[in-house]
Amino acid sequence: MQLSEQQIQQYDEDGFVLLGQVFSETEMKAMAGAFLDDQEVPGPHRVMEDDGVKVRAVYASHLRHPVFRHVVRDSRLLDPAKQILDSDVYVYQFKINTKRPFGGESWSWHQDYIVWREVDDLPSPAALNVGIFLDEVTEFNGPLIFLPGSQKLGTIEKPKARDEKSDVHVDPEDYSLKSSDLAELSQARHMTSPKGTAGSVVLFHPEIVHGSATNISPFSRNLLIITYNSVGNLPRHRGEPRAEYLVGRDTTPLLAVEGAVA
Amino acid sequence: MQLSEQQIQQYDEDGFVLLGQVFSETEMKAMAGAFLDDQEVPGPHRVMEDDGVKVRAVYASHLRHPVFRHVVRDSRLLDPAKQILDSDVYVYQFKINTKRPFGGESWSWHQDYIVWREVDDLPSPAALNVGIFLDEVTEFNGPLIFLPGSQKLGTIEKPKARDEKSDVHVDPEDYSLKSSDLAELSQARHMTSPKGTAGSVVLFHPEIVHGSATNISPFSRNLLIITYNSVGNLPRHRGEPRAEYLVGRDTTPLLAVEGAVA
Repeated sequence: MQLSEQQIQQYDEDGFVLLGQVFSETEMKAMAGAFLDDQEVPGPHRVMEDDGVKVRAVYASHLRHPVFRHVVRDSRLLDPAKQILDSDVYVYQFKINTKRPFGGESWSWHQDYIVWREVDDLPSPAALNVGIFLDEVTEFNGPLIFLPGSQKLGTIEKPKARDEKSDVHVDPEDYSLKSSDLAELSQARHMTSPKGTAGSVVLFHPEIVHGSATNISPFSRNLLIITYNSVGNLPRHRGEPRAEYLVGRDTTPLLAVEGAVA
Repeated sequence: MQLSEQQIQQYDEDGFVLLGQVFSETEMKAMAGAFLDDQEVPGPHRVMEDDGVKVRAVYASHLRHPVFRHVVRDSRLLDPAKQILDSDVYVYQFKINTKRPFGGESWSWHQDYIVWREVDDLPSPAALNVGIFLDEVTEFNGPLIFLPGSQKLGTIEKPKARDEKSDVHVDPEDYSLKSSDLAELSQARHMTSPKGTAGSVVLFHPEIVHGSATNISPFSRNLLIITYNSVGNLPRHRGEPRAEYLVGRDTTPLLAVEGAVA
């Protein structure tokens, strides 16, 4: 599946483009079932909420479950990723962020790339985030909120002081934007929040400023994010690389697969 | 100002009606200035956020500031209140809930009436909440969220165990709805969130289920809520009544004033 000229242009301008429903209801049921299975697998790839009981995020399901192994290679995602990055790509990071009903937590305003630059020595933001809505996203269940066009400013957030390179899940709180920066940014850019049915897909730039509020609704908002990286933009890993569940080791160009997720 | 038949019908059906912009920009500047002044007045009527520094709510400004003394009597609010309650009314409670940029907190799902019934012995929900948007309300700054029609179910939430009647601000957390109740409710009713420019007014029923999420945006969302009570529905106060800033003592029917807030 190729993006239209208009979609490419919108991505360039706004730093994101919502593709609408890409995966069918049946395919979403397959993904939901696969996620239910996979979130039971214990290990450091599973990040818990502050209560220590609920799952906040699960990494690298594509290395464990055949459904997600297919999803990351699905031509409906892979073709647009290669088109935008104008390059072969591989999976840099795979995560499913859960946002539970009645209290799923917020994510501070942040950009993604600076984390990868600081922690993995990723040379440039020549990567692409592909978000798949595992649940319907509405204004009520803590949707992603973007500041359109903010990716054009490059890296604006500053890392906080860090004692050592962390091998664990990196909390965007460590890199969040100053309130004054954000206040200034949003004078010029209107916050936007892509919404849609389960199976919708949004592509977004590693430097677009984004965040999300708490989910007080009775509906979960689970979001799968695949970060494709250009094979020309491999992390330099000055020290010991982070664990494979956080930063993909297999940098072989992905080959597209056709057919439904099942 | 009288409500139309359609507005009355919508209130009866949904438990709320959004009137759009009632107060002009100039009037809203007067209210904003008055609130700035009034929130400096120390006392128990001023509720702080958990950090002990920021103001979360201010009660009874209409007893301290001439601008708000006018507002509660403004015919644009008082006439619709008398029309809906079919009765003379007085101010049962006046509060301004602030919701600060970058972290103004959420309010759990709750109904209002049960609190007043339990704490003040208010005989019936023959009261009306009038919300004035002191700031523009968008999907991003933690708007009120309603479950339309839920007021028809009457009191569904249960008070938690309480040791004694509190003389202080009552936290809706003490009365919040069970998640299972809310999940069931929202199968049948779609959450709705009234939005609009500063100066917009929303009327809502004391038994409509409502809540609001955190405000992660750079824009504050301050909301003035006047609760008018029917003079035929006076609280019985079996014990010592709560402080006057929480529950109005002057039950004389309000007389409408005309003219702009200044």
